Amino acid sequence: MMLSDGSRPGRGVVAADHVSLRRNNLSVVLRHVREMGSRSRARIAADTGLNKATVSSLVAELVERGLLRDGRAESERGALGRPGQLVELDGSAVCGVGAEINVDYLAVTALDLSGVTVIERRVPLDVAHLDPGTTLDQLAELIREAVTAVHTRGGQTAGVTLAVPGLVQSATGLLKLAPNLGWTEVPVVGEMRARLGDPSYPVRVDNEANLAALAAYSELKGGAEGKAEDIVLLTGAVGVGGGMVTGGHLLRGGHGFSGEVGHMPVAPAGGICGCGRTGCWETVVGLTALLNKATDPDDPVRDPSLDVEQRLAEITRRADAGGARTLRALADVGTWLGIGGAILVNILNPDVLVLGGYFAVLGPWLKEPLESAIRDRVIAPDGGGCRVVQSELGFTAAVRGGAQISLDQVFLDPTLVGRDAAGVAQ
Amino acid sequence: MMLSDGSRPGRGVVAADHVSLRRNNLSVVLRHVREMGSRSRARIAADTGLNKATVSSLVAELVERGLLRDGRAESERGALGRPGQLVELDGSAVCGVGAEINVDYLAVTALDLSGVTVIERRVPLDVAHLDPGTTLDQLAELIREAVTAVHTRGGQTAGVTLAVPGLVQSATGLLKLAPNLGWTEVPVVGEMRARLGDPSYPVRVDNEANLAALAAYSELKGGAEGKAEDIVLLTGAVGVGGGMVTGGHLLRGGHGFSGEVGHMPVAPAGGICGCGRTGCWETVVGLTALLNKATDPDDPVRDPSLDVEQRLAEITRRADAGGARTLRALADVGTWLGIGGAILVNILNPDVLVLGGYFAVLGPWLKEPLESAIRDRVIAPDGGGCRVVQSELGFTAAVRGGAQISLDQVFLDPTLVGRDAAGVAQ
Repeated sequence: MMLSDGSRPGRGVVAADHVSLRRNNLSVVLRHVREMGSRSRARIAADTGLNKATVSSLVAELVERGLLRDGRAESERGALGRPGQLVELDGSAVCGVGAEINVDYLAVTALDLSGVTVIERRVPLDVAHLDPGTTLDQLAELIREAVTAVHTRGGQTAGVTLAVPGLVQSATGLLKLAPNLGWTEVPVVGEMRARLGDPSYPVRVDNEANLAALAAYSELKGGAEGKAEDIVLLTGAVGVGGGMVTGGHLLRGGHGFSGEVGHMPVAPAGGICGCGRTGCWETVVGLTALLNKATDPDDPVRDPSLDVEQRLAEITRRADAGGARTLRALADVGTWLGIGGAILVNILNPDVLVLGGYFAVLGPWLKEPLESAIRDRVIAPDGGGCRVVQSELGFTAAVRGGAQISLDQVFLDPTLVGRDAAGVAQ
Repeated sequence: MMLSDGSRPGRGVVAADHVSLRRNNLSVVLRHVREMGSRSRARIAADTGLNKATVSSLVAELVERGLLRDGRAESERGALGRPGQLVELDGSAVCGVGAEINVDYLAVTALDLSGVTVIERRVPLDVAHLDPGTTLDQLAELIREAVTAVHTRGGQTAGVTLAVPGLVQSATGLLKLAPNLGWTEVPVVGEMRARLGDPSYPVRVDNEANLAALAAYSELKGGAEGKAEDIVLLTGAVGVGGGMVTGGHLLRGGHGFSGEVGHMPVAPAGGICGCGRTGCWETVVGLTALLNKATDPDDPVRDPSLDVEQRLAEITRRADAGGARTLRALADVGTWLGIGGAILVNILNPDVLVLGGYFAVLGPWLKEPLESAIRDRVIAPDGGGCRVVQSELGFTAAVRGGAQISLDQVFLDPTLVGRDAAGVAQ
């Protein structure tokens, strides 16, 4: 199963012919090696039900395309007979690029096929006070840097995905509305393609919480903590974003506008939200709410021109030192996080609730009151089996998810990469 | 795309061998005829990309199994050449059975492969005041009646699905908790199999709102009202149930406990809920809330021993007659329905919000305040494109969904039906 919803069978019914069967089986073998790790051709044949000659031919083609390579010899005799040469992912030929616009920073990353980070950059920027054109100019500069790094390494760029904190129409590349950026109806894909000189690789746009949820899904899938096919990711920043994976698939909704969790009316007596309504969840769990509770107006940690990681490091220092006001504010935010989180857990019954963004950084203090609120408020026994974890991806989650979406297209259809790719990658 | 999540590719990667390829292609052809209607073999070949000889062989096998039959001759020349014999679904050979336990009634239905109702029964019963054994005895009697009706018609039963208003473990057949029935940890599948004499067909259990959502999805898919791949169904009864279909798939959550929408804390100043908490959505939109607002304590429409449809007919009569208290109560419930509904629409961005149960019956009065609350509270423009519709399935939605789930297994794997089925069905 792939990460992107691109892999999801649509409503149309499609039968397998011989060309699509070959392409499907190339994809099956490549994904199998990704999910299960390096293994022999005989083992791949046994695992997938394909016959050995077919597997040899498929592996040969994937090696030609630079997607697999021969690795070390199998160290132990398996149940299947003699040790053989292991086949493994060859990361070098193609990379996916993710690039994020957020309220107070820009970020970019490039990942190779095996998930190795080729380049990663984050630049503080007060995006909400710049015009979109200027911001997109600066992001284009970062993307060019990433594409150059991929090229220098001998690889090709499979695609670029833009991550934005707002409502997007992925099909048209339009950012409809990003309240916390102050952007409305910006054709971000078209604008970025123009800045990049109309490149041959595809450029996409997606919601940052969706992409962060995909990255978290990948992160958890590799872990030993139990089932994680249904996850809810909450990203804490100035706003609160929600991303959902259900049954291994991103939940985008009918028009791609899912995950607007920040405006649940959970605190009717609460403050006025940026959206103009009263009592939205964001007003009690957004970063501004925490800073207002934990600090005085002239406290330097409120300064948006400082990098958010530095500001959070200072909050962490105060909490570690036992600062009473800081700890009270964190407990309060944690409880409110659980009150809204319980709504999501009751509706979606995720295996895992993942804390991202600032929620992850301050997770050690937020988690206990959050879990307590979930235990109290979720109808299913034991919170419906939901675990709460902190993402370890920090502020790179959305760009990693963006890079993965581009790579997923290759896993779904390995023939997208030319047969000379292995040569290029030398 | 099938209705049940049984059709959803799991995480495991499966390659196509020749046996599974044949089975897959049988399923493709059968589903294609279901989705697209009767058509010629040549047209099926053109639509699916299979070659004509293969399609002829697949159709012949499906006819042998009693799942397809030759219909009328094609009336017009298509782009593909001469008119041919049309192939259509043959409903008669197999039926699915759905059976529901709810707070104040039992119900059963059997549907044939083409969706035609073979039998439908609903019996008022004060389930909350009976022990589970007695209720299951009575439901078994209804199921036997349905299976007999199928057999008398010359068909076979593909399976029985039990619909319950509570948390279920589908895999083990256990009803974990149904607060409004007062049932806890009842192994309903095992109990029912014993009462039915351990039948050869499978018996399943599922949440009634999940099954109603599947039925609503089928209902909408056939309609001309636009895209309906992502839907949220709200069933109004004593409690409020939620069922969700996303991208054509039922959203069950990690442990099957999704859709617990009734206990969102939307009305902190509200009443005490059956769950023991305060201000749950159920306390302001459940049937009891409406009756408390609209009627005096001794009003006969509050009498749970009367059939709920009769009681709702009386409410409808009063609203039609302009009864001020009734209209005020309906407007109030409609607004609260919108306040909670907007949370779901913000999170899930459905194409359609479907009103089921009593919400459907009283929809003409609930819909306007509901839509107004959604317009005000959904962040995406135009409510994220979400339409609000009343289900036309009434209280049969869950049993229809249950019957469909059993039939879906046949659409996914037509070889489940023996090759002599066509003979049996004569």
